[in-house]
Amino acid sequence: MQQKVNKHAEKKITSRSEDYSQWYQDIIEAAELAEHGPVKGTMIIKPTGYAIWEKIQQVLDMKIKETGVKNAYFPLLIPERFLQKEQKHIEGFTPEVAVVTYAGGKKLKEALIIRPTSETIIYHAFARWVESHRDLPILINQWANVVRWEARPRLFLRTTEFLWQEGHTAHATKEEAEERALMMMSVYKKFFEEYLAIPSIVGQKSDAERFAGADKTYTLEAMMQDGKALQLATSHDLGQNFSRVFNLNFTDAKAKEHYCYQTSWGVSTRSIGGLIMSHSDDKGLVLPPKIAPTQGVVIPIWNDKKDEKRVMEVVAGLEDLLNKENISFHADMSQKSIGEKFYYWEKRGIPIRVEIGPRDIAKQSVIVVRRDSGDKETVRIKLFPQKISKLLDDIQSDLLDAARERLSSHTIEVKNWEEFTDAIKKHRFILAYWCGDEKVEEAIKEKTGATIRCIPSNQKNEKGKCIYSGKEADQKVIFAKAY
Amino acid sequence: MQQKVNKHAEKKITSRSEDYSQWYQDIIEAAELAEHGPVKGTMIIKPTGYAIWEKIQQVLDMKIKETGVKNAYFPLLIPERFLQKEQKHIEGFTPEVAVVTYAGGKKLKEALIIRPTSETIIYHAFARWVESHRDLPILINQWANVVRWEARPRLFLRTTEFLWQEGHTAHATKEEAEERALMMMSVYKKFFEEYLAIPSIVGQKSDAERFAGADKTYTLEAMMQDGKALQLATSHDLGQNFSRVFNLNFTDAKAKEHYCYQTSWGVSTRSIGGLIMSHSDDKGLVLPPKIAPTQGVVIPIWNDKKDEKRVMEVVAGLEDLLNKENISFHADMSQKSIGEKFYYWEKRGIPIRVEIGPRDIAKQSVIVVRRDSGDKETVRIKLFPQKISKLLDDIQSDLLDAARERLSSHTIEVKNWEEFTDAIKKHRFILAYWCGDEKVEEAIKEKTGATIRCIPSNQKNEKGKCIYSGKEADQKVIFAKAY
Repeated sequence: MQQKVNKHAEKKITSRSEDYSQWYQDIIEAAELAEHGPVKGTMIIKPTGYAIWEKIQQVLDMKIKETGVKNAYFPLLIPERFLQKEQKHIEGFTPEVAVVTYAGGKKLKEALIIRPTSETIIYHAFARWVESHRDLPILINQWANVVRWEARPRLFLRTTEFLWQEGHTAHATKEEAEERALMMMSVYKKFFEEYLAIPSIVGQKSDAERFAGADKTYTLEAMMQDGKALQLATSHDLGQNFSRVFNLNFTDAKAKEHYCYQTSWGVSTRSIGGLIMSHSDDKGLVLPPKIAPTQGVVIPIWNDKKDEKRVMEVVAGLEDLLNKENISFHADMSQKSIGEKFYYWEKRGIPIRVEIGPRDIAKQSVIVVRRDSGDKETVRIKLFPQKISKLLDDIQSDLLDAARERLSSHTIEVKNWEEFTDAIKKHRFILAYWCGDEKVEEAIKEKTGATIRCIPSNQKNEKGKCIYSGKEADQKVIFAKAY
Repeated sequence: MQQKVNKHAEKKITSRSEDYSQWYQDIIEAAELAEHGPVKGTMIIKPTGYAIWEKIQQVLDMKIKETGVKNAYFPLLIPERFLQKEQKHIEGFTPEVAVVTYAGGKKLKEALIIRPTSETIIYHAFARWVESHRDLPILINQWANVVRWEARPRLFLRTTEFLWQEGHTAHATKEEAEERALMMMSVYKKFFEEYLAIPSIVGQKSDAERFAGADKTYTLEAMMQDGKALQLATSHDLGQNFSRVFNLNFTDAKAKEHYCYQTSWGVSTRSIGGLIMSHSDDKGLVLPPKIAPTQGVVIPIWNDKKDEKRVMEVVAGLEDLLNKENISFHADMSQKSIGEKFYYWEKRGIPIRVEIGPRDIAKQSVIVVRRDSGDKETVRIKLFPQKISKLLDDIQSDLLDAARERLSSHTIEVKNWEEFTDAIKKHRFILAYWCGDEKVEEAIKEKTGATIRCIPSNQKNEKGKCIYSGKEADQKVIFAKAY
């Protein structure tokens, strides 16, 4: 048998200041969130990582359904000719697709692609489902895996296969479609703030960064701890681009035919990468309580059998109290040493650690430690569940506050090119006027590595001079380096 | 624009006696559960069908987790050489796989297969995760899509892509693995009885019908209304077949190395096919209340505006009462006629229909109709939620009783070949002695179309004569035609 590497040998987590990129990988390894699969760019999501995804799914699925959307499931394999129908869509996705050419022991007559996204196959079905305006709107979502070949894969952030939800709708009017595209942005923004404690800037993508086949792409751009941008979610106003090529039409009340207006929108496992880079520290993962699969861990401490019995009784009692409050706690009864247990849960980001030993019990109290701040306090057992409940709320809002503070203090408005290049060196989000010329966008990207993350939605109707071309510009945009 | 077929034109459901196979397709179409995808053998699961799958997932996921299993996610794409490691596994699956040969615009150096099942890629990871006996057992499950090329596809029953959960475990001892394989059979059997109201026979597969790579395959065999068998779930005792080829080993307390013992087990969207064929009738789908996404529908009836207001107040009040009891009801406020509404919900299998009109309100009562039996009764509004709760329980147990009655009355023990062929013509499950010879199994299949569904677990240690060869046999088996 082959020799194996000792997997229990603990690896030190690289500090963020030393190497941010290595720190990110170390966090994922230390918290056992995911690892690389055998095919380049693929990812194995380990139980700890998958539990976070299940939590994201559970909440987001509920929020999506509350807007009237229903789940369905469409096939993984798409005939190649479907992708070729929408010209921009094919140009955008062809370099990324995986192609099935053999199946059932035979060469296929028509090659099949593994879905990189499902607009084509879903709208092909919508065209059969829709006949009159009474069949509209169609509001569908699916939770699925998609495959896009990645040249430079990174766990969670860019993987050849990833998991996501993709929503797809069809409407009778342009206004209704636009309203849906914006509604989903607001569902997403609220979800990321409330649950993942990640604030973001809402805006539109520039033409160059838009989804292949959309009229408009709305995006949520979040700032990671290193000042780089991460796109958390997108929502596309597809206009009639797909309905025209898939013959998705309806008759109105006067029996007149029209093409539908459509939207699509999604959030993927990439959001876990954003979660890691928003809150974690040099000791490991930090999870906001509302998305943590386990919100706290109890470490029982004893020296002899008599102590053990007493401590265990108290632990069982506390667990009951927490369960009643719907707080998910885990009592660590493993054979590890106390120190090992502390370290184990710390690097996994469990929001609260509770220590209970005979001395604490004698004083009718326990020690409670916050993962985010490291703050330690003694809590009377009598007040325990209320205190834990309060602490979880505090941690959740403190994490959001810190992320908001970072986003606002690290976003700066610049007036000239010198300020621009200086801000890029300082890893800032830059708000600046842009003339709208794609060549200018391209030149800025080449010179600085920064791209237009979005044209923020909440801007005043003012004019200024383009930061690069000096031409008159009627919009400010956010520039940043991005994941 | 192209002319479309009028999708609102109602299609009659073929009766079961006329054409069972066409009836099955008609039920799926009438209840809008699923339809064929553009690639042969693929399936689009429509919202009504997917809601049933979500319900199955929700309950089964909880039951699986209660046994200590954790969810994870492994890649869709598997290097071709992985499949080739286990000889029987490759022989079993090669004719069914879909192969990716191009990706990212280039021909791949090594072809990739789309998972037909994930033993190989998961055990390749387990081998990295396991070092000593302290790392065992590993208990993992994943909810995923798999692809197996189907020559004769049928919606839900045999589709090129299907959804399932696949559990995978690794243990230190043969006994522990065997215990896990059997434990999952009992979880599955209970789940199908309690929730889907489908009774089944537990047993082992013969060598010819065993999973490619397993030492033993346990199966749940259910009887459909036409007397044919449907395999609802399987659980495999994999022995050390995979651990040897993937070098999945561990050191025991004495630092001695051993290969792990393993199991895998799964339930798929095929179970929805079994659900349809267990309970539905010539009017449409019939759903057991515990798996029905919507348990009842309220049809408000009025002639004028004044009535409408009064009826709607009562409907809102009843909805509140039902919500408090966690009963999911839908009030149909659409523009359809009363008759259309009755028909619409009937064919969708909603367990209970409630009719409320001004005359009912005047009498402080409502009319309640059971979907399964058609029984109609007047219920005092005061007693409404308790009565509905009781009715849902009754429907659930009546459906299970009816399915049990069918299974036991249509399973017969035969003593000779004449009885055997007669029973096959009558679409029965046949219990008969079998000598264990694969050639005999094959000959019976060729002559009658019946296969060995399983070697039932609960049989006495008796001997008899093989139904076909006349040789001494020490086991009875179940023969039947199967889906």
